[in-house]
Amino acid sequence: MFKATIDAYLLKDSIETLSVLVDEARFRISPEGVVVRAVDPANVAMVSFDLTPEAFDDFEANDCELGLDLSRINDILGVADRDDKVQMELDEESKKLKIQIGGFSYTISLLDPSTIRAEPRIPQLELPAEIVLNGKDLQKAVKAAEKISDHMLLGVEGESFFMEAEGDTDRVKLTMTRDQLIDIKPSQVRSLFSLDYLSDIIKPASKSNEISLHLGNDFPIKINFSIANGKGTIGYLLAPRIESD
Amino acid sequence: MFKATIDAYLLKDSIETLSVLVDEARFRISPEGVVVRAVDPANVAMVSFDLTPEAFDDFEANDCELGLDLSRINDILGVADRDDKVQMELDEESKKLKIQIGGFSYTISLLDPSTIRAEPRIPQLELPAEIVLNGKDLQKAVKAAEKISDHMLLGVEGESFFMEAEGDTDRVKLTMTRDQLIDIKPSQVRSLFSLDYLSDIIKPASKSNEISLHLGNDFPIKINFSIANGKGTIGYLLAPRIESD
Amino acid sequence: MFKATIDAYLLKDSIETLSVLVDEARFRISPEGVVVRAVDPANVAMVSFDLTPEAFDDFEANDCELGLDLSRINDILGVADRDDKVQMELDEESKKLKIQIGGFSYTISLLDPSTIRAEPRIPQLELPAEIVLNGKDLQKAVKAAEKISDHMLLGVEGESFFMEAEGDTDRVKLTMTRDQLIDIKPSQVRSLFSLDYLSDIIKPASKSNEISLHLGNDFPIKINFSIANGKGTIGYLLAPRIESD
Repeated sequence: MFKATIDAYLLKDSIETLSVLVDEARFRISPEGVVVRAVDPANVAMVSFDLTPEAFDDFEANDCELGLDLSRINDILGVADRDDKVQMELDEESKKLKIQIGGFSYTISLLDPSTIRAEPRIPQLELPAEIVLNGKDLQKAVKAAEKISDHMLLGVEGESFFMEAEGDTDRVKLTMTRDQLIDIKPSQVRSLFSLDYLSDIIKPASKSNEISLHLGNDFPIKINFSIANGKGTIGYLLAPRIESD
Repeated sequence: MFKATIDAYLLKDSIETLSVLVDEARFRISPEGVVVRAVDPANVAMVSFDLTPEAFDDFEANDCELGLDLSRINDILGVADRDDKVQMELDEESKKLKIQIGGFSYTISLLDPSTIRAEPRIPQLELPAEIVLNGKDLQKAVKAAEKISDHMLLGVEGESFFMEAEGDTDRVKLTMTRDQLIDIKPSQVRSLFSLDYLSDIIKPASKSNEISLHLGNDFPIKINFSIANGKGTIGYLLAPRIESD
Repeated sequence: MFKATIDAYLLKDSIETLSVLVDEARFRISPEGVVVRAVDPANVAMVSFDLTPEAFDDFEANDCELGLDLSRINDILGVADRDDKVQMELDEESKKLKIQIGGFSYTISLLDPSTIRAEPRIPQLELPAEIVLNGKDLQKAVKAAEKISDHMLLGVEGESFFMEAEGDTDRVKLTMTRDQLIDIKPSQVRSLFSLDYLSDIIKPASKSNEISLHLGNDFPIKINFSIANGKGTIGYLLAPRIESD
């Protein structure tokens, strides 16, 4: 059983955090909220999505699992106004999700969760450096790097966070000192990442005033931020590329 | 003889009501105004266009017929400001239309009306249900339906107007009660229409605060609204698709 | 040696005046400022670009020549805000240009100037007619002409400036009298030009409230205007097309 009401823009922003990595997702629903763990088809990036019942206006649920085609939901939300309310109700018998929004009643066929890739195991990693900054600042760095290269080095030098991108002929570097960041827990680290993935992940992350990065040496990066006015959390884990010297 | 002046935005909006269905049109001109009757190349939709002399700042005309390439006129109007005045004058000898707009003088070759498809006979239909609503509301329904299917059911149930679209797996339904409509003359009807056509027709219709729909059972739909601040009328007639049960 | 600081939007607008004609350019730098003379690959249009040291916040230079890929610089400036400051410094040893902008440090490889097409000799021409007008007015004329043809006649009749375009079936003419122009030095002239080139050149020129055109009979047109708040000048020279009668 699942029956809930949420603001259209919250649902829209939530779905976007998943759709940058996957087309379909298994939503694990319980009285504690909604959980998604998904990995992109190339096994390079993972997302952990957690939405508490407080993100909803109304939320009633028993344990259940919904398989959803994210582009369908995006299509529907695209017609709605951002301040519309979305009412959702699971019809367990017909395996359909009923969605009421802006006067429209949708009936959406669910995907069989077993046909969707299984939840990944999220590895526990020791990432010694942590940087907290405005999502817009990281987005600007990603855009600058894209003009030069297809990958980007992120790291910490002394008490400063840096990003660097190097193409065949040109190079760009940005250094942000402690006073330009919200916070930093420094440690001498650096890892190289694909800009394909970073530029997708940064889209939802750039809407957050405060994102935290966890970095190691040639280790994955963790990018965490909250959604739904603090009533949900998103965590991305992106594998590093090997730096060729 | 034909000589007239009109606001650029009125001419632009008028031309758009035709160009969603046809590329070329015969404009039948007389002291009573301008009349176009046209049918789309696939014979699925017709448009009746009537502009009274009052839509113009100046209007002098004897009976004549102009064949116009609508995209040419659109191109010219695209350069103009919306509040420019358009002066038109037919040069009967050279078979050209002279257009003055925003300081520019255009000379446009007319098409031989006999090379343009003949005017269709507009059938007289008994359509028992009539719904009057805001054009934006129908546009929103068409957009929602497009996300689900390529055709759309329109009908009346009890005292409510409804639209419904059904795809391979999903469905959407919108019901508008009497108080959400401007007016309704109810009658138990339903007909299915191609969204290709509806989404073209809805573009000009959505600019009108008040459009009237006439519906029957598996019958064409009539969509009527006024243009040029009430000094002209547009009527579309769209053939139904056969509903396969 | 070259070290300078300039507003990002001034550099952006300056680069645009060149990039409409060429992809790469030789920047000739001296204590007197920055000079570029370039010709498009088809030898149809030339640009003379002069920026005085006063266009810069800081400017220190010995004689030197920089070969730049304009799209690279455009990419970098695209990430910057318009009111950012751009600091540039030539590293003569490594033949690289260092650019600081909005916190980012770029290192750009210079092109070997000898691989870039040599500076054209700018011909001295007797062009008897001069018209001074708002760049927006010429842009509107170019846009109107593009709807009708791929070339455009510019000339002077009596005390009026005119432009005319003629397609296979249609024609457009604009006449601007002395009171619609900023100034005119009349002389009976007319020349035909390719709209491909005019529509490129008009992009930067349309931002200027005052551009001056110099015209002759079947002679090139000179289009001059100032940039960088009067601290620089741009001159285009565009060859005529032969009018076939």
